[in-house]
Amino acid sequence: MSTSEDKKITILGAGLVGSLLSIYLSRRGYEVTMYERRPDMRKENISAGKSINLALSDRGWLGLQGVGIEAAIRKVAIPMNGRMMHSVKGDLTYQQYGEEGQSIYATSRGLLNCVMMDEAEKKGVKIVFNHRCTRVDMENAIASFESPEGAKDVKSRLIFSADGAFSAGRLALQLGADRFDYSQNYLKHGYKELLIPAGPSDSFKMEKHALHIWTRGGYMLIALPNMDGSFTCTLFFPFEGEESFASIKTEEDCNAFFKKNFPDALELMPDLAKQFFSNPTGALVTVKCFPWTYKDKLCLIGDAAHAIVPFYGQGMNCGFEDCTVLESLLEKYNEDWSKVLPAYQAARKPNSDAIADLAIMNFVEMRDLVGSKEFLLRKKIEARIHEKHPEKWLPLYSQVTFSAIPYSEALANGLRQDGIMKKVMALPGIEAKWDSAEVEKMILDQLV
Amino acid sequence: MSTSEDKKITILGAGLVGSLLSIYLSRRGYEVTMYERRPDMRKENISAGKSINLALSDRGWLGLQGVGIEAAIRKVAIPMNGRMMHSVKGDLTYQQYGEEGQSIYATSRGLLNCVMMDEAEKKGVKIVFNHRCTRVDMENAIASFESPEGAKDVKSRLIFSADGAFSAGRLALQLGADRFDYSQNYLKHGYKELLIPAGPSDSFKMEKHALHIWTRGGYMLIALPNMDGSFTCTLFFPFEGEESFASIKTEEDCNAFFKKNFPDALELMPDLAKQFFSNPTGALVTVKCFPWTYKDKLCLIGDAAHAIVPFYGQGMNCGFEDCTVLESLLEKYNEDWSKVLPAYQAARKPNSDAIADLAIMNFVEMRDLVGSKEFLLRKKIEARIHEKHPEKWLPLYSQVTFSAIPYSEALANGLRQDGIMKKVMALPGIEAKWDSAEVEKMILDQLV
Repeated sequence: MSTSEDKKITILGAGLVGSLLSIYLSRRGYEVTMYERRPDMRKENISAGKSINLALSDRGWLGLQGVGIEAAIRKVAIPMNGRMMHSVKGDLTYQQYGEEGQSIYATSRGLLNCVMMDEAEKKGVKIVFNHRCTRVDMENAIASFESPEGAKDVKSRLIFSADGAFSAGRLALQLGADRFDYSQNYLKHGYKELLIPAGPSDSFKMEKHALHIWTRGGYMLIALPNMDGSFTCTLFFPFEGEESFASIKTEEDCNAFFKKNFPDALELMPDLAKQFFSNPTGALVTVKCFPWTYKDKLCLIGDAAHAIVPFYGQGMNCGFEDCTVLESLLEKYNEDWSKVLPAYQAARKPNSDAIADLAIMNFVEMRDLVGSKEFLLRKKIEARIHEKHPEKWLPLYSQVTFSAIPYSEALANGLRQDGIMKKVMALPGIEAKWDSAEVEKMILDQLV
Repeated sequence: MSTSEDKKITILGAGLVGSLLSIYLSRRGYEVTMYERRPDMRKENISAGKSINLALSDRGWLGLQGVGIEAAIRKVAIPMNGRMMHSVKGDLTYQQYGEEGQSIYATSRGLLNCVMMDEAEKKGVKIVFNHRCTRVDMENAIASFESPEGAKDVKSRLIFSADGAFSAGRLALQLGADRFDYSQNYLKHGYKELLIPAGPSDSFKMEKHALHIWTRGGYMLIALPNMDGSFTCTLFFPFEGEESFASIKTEEDCNAFFKKNFPDALELMPDLAKQFFSNPTGALVTVKCFPWTYKDKLCLIGDAAHAIVPFYGQGMNCGFEDCTVLESLLEKYNEDWSKVLPAYQAARKPNSDAIADLAIMNFVEMRDLVGSKEFLLRKKIEARIHEKHPEKWLPLYSQVTFSAIPYSEALANGLRQDGIMKKVMALPGIEAKWDSAEVEKMILDQLV
């Protein structure tokens, strides 16, 4: 193999993770070509596919910093410092996410993707659009594509499959690899996006620097701010049942449902019912699989390896962390792919499993608990213990969002904290003595 | 649609479940064609694929009785009345499976399949060989095939996918159905078949009417009798690790391993090491998915819907029970497929999930417990309670093997019995008082 062939890498998918990966590899001298199924979204006004608004947090920023494109992204991101909970009556309760100065950052998937493709091209990455991958020949690292110009086979040193939850590379592993463990599991809830338009002069009609949440037990609505003063809401709602997408059949049903459950949001969306019936309903899937690699010829990354539900806001962040870890292993093993890829999948698999489970757990917490008195009290106790003993107690949300602690450790720590806090919350009269020395000692004793 | 088109049914796969299903449908006047990937095994001497010897039990016989082919199958089946456990020293311990007269029946997958295809053809079923299904168009019930004669599309009223663990019909659901839940999970153990040849004049070198088991903790060997006096052994063994397929590299390694762990079996297999290296190593997968149907156009059945590991001997029996249940629903709903198929998948899914879990649990039990003193004592206590109170206590093995109690109920009953027996086995001095009135009362009290 000539040096040039040895440096040729194909990436399937020019989404967020593919774009970041392409920059990391390009900086190391690889000749990287990304093949994207859709047209160039920078030129045509198209949907970027999954359009749930994203929240960039620490792991995501680390990935961007590693290739020096953090500043470019900051320009299209709005810091959110806490969650704003909306009661049925319209009462607001605000809860800071972390410490002073810690934020997650709302950004539009489409906008972010455009900036990242620009950055990738600046670094020498070639992006080929309108190319749908129809087959991956793992043994020979050949990807086949269909495009308006016809069919094409591309051979390279190594194929990265960054093509999302319905990955062509993963399908090749499923059909061709020995003993490939695989699962795809859907929630009974789907989602629908709805827009709260900007106020006069692009003003924000709700608090700009917060993630808004309306929790209602079996379902919930959230809203994230956009750069133009609007908010993108997402309704997470059962597909079937008494209150469900299936049960809302007319504009009247829709308005009545929102009036009853989300009256303050309804007021901000005059054309709600129209949006409800013209916008698509999306499904929410968790994908787990293993192995992620075939010899040193094919490697899954991002959602292709581990699609997760969006309730911890970590899908993209986890994918970016895949890139950071891969980069550190390329350094450690001097770009010997036969060592890098096994180490990469061994390092990432337990952590992507953990964030998948955390995301499902957080769905239940957000839907059912956020906003309840007990939940607020528990958060208050945890915040106090953290403030007094920051080295002993970091709330789970902060471990996941504002640290690079491996997700699997965060999950284990979180389960342990959960056990401790359950005992604390069961103490008689906890409401009155939540900030007492007794409670503090009880918690610390259990941490030993 | 003309009456004739309305009666045209395609079955993918002419294996055991496809063949039985074809007879049930043919008897109802459907025009059934089965397409089989392999050549006709009745004419050519080929492997029938997965060749683990099978054990027919009550659910399987029920399926065969329903179409009147029980007698034909009895001729190729050997009753096994209990398990014969072999210690390292060669000591034998025999344990009857159920009551007097209850047996499971050893049969060769290939032989059984040949008889069943004969019976299907007698009933008017058409079988087309050497046709590999390349694609299923669910919306239009069109199956595409590749064969030595070229490519072909076949349209019918309804396609049954009885094409096993790597089903083409299931792949169509995975790629095309909304919110298709799917998992395939492999055990860390694989299997290898080994033959104990017959003795002089086709005599059996071990007890004929038993399933032989050599349990050794992390792995095990089993043997089932064949019609010709031989036994087919199956070694269940880890793929990787200190004692594993990977660690046995030479004929010396192989002989040394068997001499240490299975000396009495080694004596009966003079050519063991040759067999070990020429026979393939198989993998063991559990497949779960849902839904099993697409409109009234496609329906999964047997392993295609629910591949399970072989440790409860129920894979084929469960697939035959699919056919029995489908037949009863065809009767109940007067062949209205739009009612039959949803009822079929709703009835079978919880039961196939249960037997999948039971099969995994039985692997652990067989590997680690069978033959231990505690296990034998527990079985003795259960047998005594069953004998005295047959209406109150039916051992789990009998519920699964010698009854048609839904697998999901058997699993629930079994877990309950397990909880009771754990307490009983923890009684001080249980060895001495196992048949006492005290123990009997303790068990009965917990059943209330």
